[in-house]
Order: sequence, then structure tokens, then C-alpha cells
Amino acid sequence: MTDNNLWFTEQCEHGGSAFGVKIREHLHSEQTEYQRIDIYATEKFGNLMTIDGLFMLTARENFLYHEMMSHPALFMHPSPERVVIIGGGDCGTLREVLKHGRVTHALQVEIDERVTRLAEEFFPELCIANDDPRAAFLFGDGIKWMKEAVPGNVDIVIVDSTDPVGPAEGLFTEDFYRDCHRALGSDGLLVQQSESPLFNMDLINSIHKAMRSAGFADVRTLFFPQPCYPSGWWSATMAGKQSLDGRFREQDALRKRFDTQYYNAAMHKAAFTAPEFFSKGLL
Amino acid sequence: MTDNNLWFTEQCEHGGSAFGVKIREHLHSEQTEYQRIDIYATEKFGNLMTIDGLFMLTARENFLYHEMMSHPALFMHPSPERVVIIGGGDCGTLREVLKHGRVTHALQVEIDERVTRLAEEFFPELCIANDDPRAAFLFGDGIKWMKEAVPGNVDIVIVDSTDPVGPAEGLFTEDFYRDCHRALGSDGLLVQQSESPLFNMDLINSIHKAMRSAGFADVRTLFFPQPCYPSGWWSATMAGKQSLDGRFREQDALRKRFDTQYYNAAMHKAAFTAPEFFSKGLL
Repeated sequence: MTDNNLWFTEQCEHGGSAFGVKIREHLHSEQTEYQRIDIYATEKFGNLMTIDGLFMLTARENFLYHEMMSHPALFMHPSPERVVIIGGGDCGTLREVLKHGRVTHALQVEIDERVTRLAEEFFPELCIANDDPRAAFLFGDGIKWMKEAVPGNVDIVIVDSTDPVGPAEGLFTEDFYRDCHRALGSDGLLVQQSESPLFNMDLINSIHKAMRSAGFADVRTLFFPQPCYPSGWWSATMAGKQSLDGRFREQDALRKRFDTQYYNAAMHKAAFTAPEFFSKGLL
Repeated sequence: MTDNNLWFTEQCEHGGSAFGVKIREHLHSEQTEYQRIDIYATEKFGNLMTIDGLFMLTARENFLYHEMMSHPALFMHPSPERVVIIGGGDCGTLREVLKHGRVTHALQVEIDERVTRLAEEFFPELCIANDDPRAAFLFGDGIKWMKEAVPGNVDIVIVDSTDPVGPAEGLFTEDFYRDCHRALGSDGLLVQQSESPLFNMDLINSIHKAMRSAGFADVRTLFFPQPCYPSGWWSATMAGKQSLDGRFREQDALRKRFDTQYYNAAMHKAAFTAPEFFSKGLL
């Protein structure tokens, strides 16, 4: 907390901006093997988890991120059965993935088990699918897991990571994406959270380049609001082993049998619409 | 500035959130007849104008708001010749409106002339069209102007106002919208900035209701990111005297001869896509 004991504020140096939420109580703090995790009760955002002093998620608006990290890919793969989530320790992405009846195996590979244990305690609504027999949990290094993965055995990889510094840095590299490419089947899709379109154009360009260099045939970025992340505007970048054209199972999305708060079939298409500056800035 | 002298921070009580930008220098401060206006040089957002301690605009990201307040309506009216901007004293909306060759008259009715004079000084890039012979400026009460307007003489009204408190409160009422309806021609469109979809669902519902009660046949909300406003996610609500279906002059938008940073023909359609919670929450 940088201003006083009533607000938690994250200052983003490279963006020159800060976002804060009013808090009621500092519920928990611990230093794990990998990072410092704090939990706060906020006035208006429900519970908040921070990692190393940065917003990870709030109960109020994590639906934006979790839905947009999962449903676009799940509705673009012709047969999404085997999904691997790298990171995603709060289990929110896993919950969304498991809403899809076609999924037979969803493996969450989170490096820090404490993130998941604290999510179970402070964000139980994100963990309601954790007992689903299709869900599996591995607490370990996602980079190593991907390097050793059986080739062609995964349909979708979702990289639900922290920022590209510290433990997550290796998740934004061509080497890692090449391992993802090898692990994916021929229709495989990779989704990576790719930071703010306003603040991180260079990073997004480097992700595109690395994904293409790793062998992916098509790379596209999608956009969504995310109030608690720097600039309040966020992106995910999707790579396909084949072209992404015509891949959207729109009829299935229109007839989906589960609830969402942000995503729907129309939003699927809208989210891939690039702002003018983005199209021009993409190398 | 609420935390220290290096940051300007706006706390949004009803949202329970705060947004701040790192500043270099406090360039100007004055109390006008209507409000307090401050200008800051920021580290990463260019110049910043605040009114009564609230973010009005930054040089870096005002393009989002100004483009989305203007181009969707301009490309939905069959013949947008006469445009009235209520508020909009920074001239950014006026600049976007005047990019449209069909516009013959654009009148900006701003209550506080000092906003415009300070924009000319600190945001000259927004004022480059102020000498356009099609532009006219009236410094006075937009509510009164609309009440006395010649019926049927305006094609588009853009309400580019501050929040619905203080001087702008009367701009969010059925009475004002009824005056707009009367001032508009039969194809007329009204656009109102309508705050955060995340924080202000009640307000947006009340705007929809007031616009319909005022006689508008069709009312729709569009969405866009706006980092410096509460939640970083913003909306504009458009009302048509006739149905808004099929009104988009898509071919004209695809062939537009002017530059934009966010808006384009695809974004036009994307922006009207409602998140699932919004569609369900709209009364």
C-alpha cells in the first residue's frame, strides 16, 4: 500500500500511471518460495490478491480476464478436449475452461501452490470446479513441463501468467512457444496474456514475432477492459498452428449452455477488432 | 493531488477505486465562474486537464473518447450537416466532427469559456480545427440553448459533458433530451457520454429510460476503453429519432479520408457489442 492504509495502490512506472482500490482490511500476507502474496478485503471490489505488490485479481472484475483468456480459444478449436493452463493458480481460468462440455482433461501447471491454496480460501467462487474429475493440478515449472510434454497431445495451451518479469519471464520467449507448438496437436491453439495495448505495444510485437518464429501460422490479439491492470485495458494474444480464419464455432457459442458475464458470441468477434493505432503499430 | 506532489490521483468513491498519473509540473490552476481547472504536465500522459479535481483529459489517450463520441454518430446519420456539441470545451470532439466533409456547421456550446481558452494554450492539437469556417463557438448554457433551439434544425447533438453532478446534472434529464429531440431533424441522433459500464449501470439505465421517454425511438450504448476515467472503461449512449438499425454508412467509414487512432469501420460495429452482464442488466 503506497499512499495510506485505506488504499492499495499499484504504480506502473513504465506507464506513468497508478490504480488503487479502497480497502477494508489486510487479510493475509505471506512470502512464498517464489513471491509475496497479499490478500485484502476491499470496499467495492470484493477480495483482492496481489503478488509482489501488483494487482493479480479482484472478485469484482476478474470475470473479464478469465472469460477472455478461455472462451475465445475454446470456441475456436474444433474439438477442445485437452487443455493445459500454465500459471492460472487462482483457478479462474480453469473454472471457465471446464464450463465447456467437450473438455476431457484440464491441467493447471502453477509454479506456486500457495496461490491456489489462497484462492481456495479467499476466492472460493473461482475454485468451484477444482473437484471436477476432468481437472488436474501440477505445482511446478510450466516451462519445464512444456519442454518435456508428449508431442501433439494438447489442444489448447493458455498461458495465464504474471507480467514478463521474474518467474514468468521465460513464458514470453520463442523457446517456450516452440515447446508449446510441439506439445499442441495439429489444430492447436496457444493463448498468452499480453498486457496493455496502450502501454505495451513493443511487448505485443515481440510476442507476435516470437510466436511466428516458433512455428505458429497465425497470430492475433484480442482486447478487453480490465480495470485493475495498468491502463485498465488489456489483451490476449492467440496463436494457431493453422490459420485462425473461419475457426470460430459461432453456432456453438450462440447456444452455449453456461453463463458468462462478459463473453458472448458477438463479443467474441468484437474482441478481435483492432484499434487503428494497433493495426498500424503491428510490425 | 491526493497522495503526494508527484502524482495526481482521482479517487472515485462510488467505484471504490482510484486512478493516478505521475506528474512533472503543475502548470496552471484557476477558479472560474463555474469550476476549478488545473493543468499538469505528466510524465507519460502529456498534458492533463482536471476540473474540480477530476480527470477531464490527457494528451495521450483523449483520442479514445473524442473519436467514439463523434464518428459512430457521424457515420450513422445519412447526411450529417449540422452538428451541435454541448460541452466539449476542449475542442477535441469538434476537431473529430470537422473531419467529416459533409458537416457544414458545427456549433460548440460550452458553458465555461476558460476550458476552451486553456485547451488552446495547453492542448493546441485539439484546437487545430477551431479556425475552420464551419466551426462556431457559443459560451453559454447548453440546456438553455437547446430549449430555445429552432425545431428540426440539427442533425446530431453530442453531449460531451462532465459527470452528472454540478453544472452538467441537467444534461442527463428527460427534459433536456426532449429539447434535443425537438431540435433534431427527422433523422436526428443524440449522443451522450454515459460513464462506466462497470460502475454506472443504474445511470445508464436511467439515461436509456429518459431518452425513450423523451420520444427517441431507439437507444443504444457503445463501449470503449478510457484509462483516465473511473474503471478505465467508458460508454456513450446514442438515441435516434428513428431506428438505428441499418444506419451505419459502412462503405463511407471504410473509405474515410481522415486519420483516426482508435475508430475504424470494424471498431464501429465492435463498439456496440454489449457485454453479457450489460444486456442482462439493461431494464
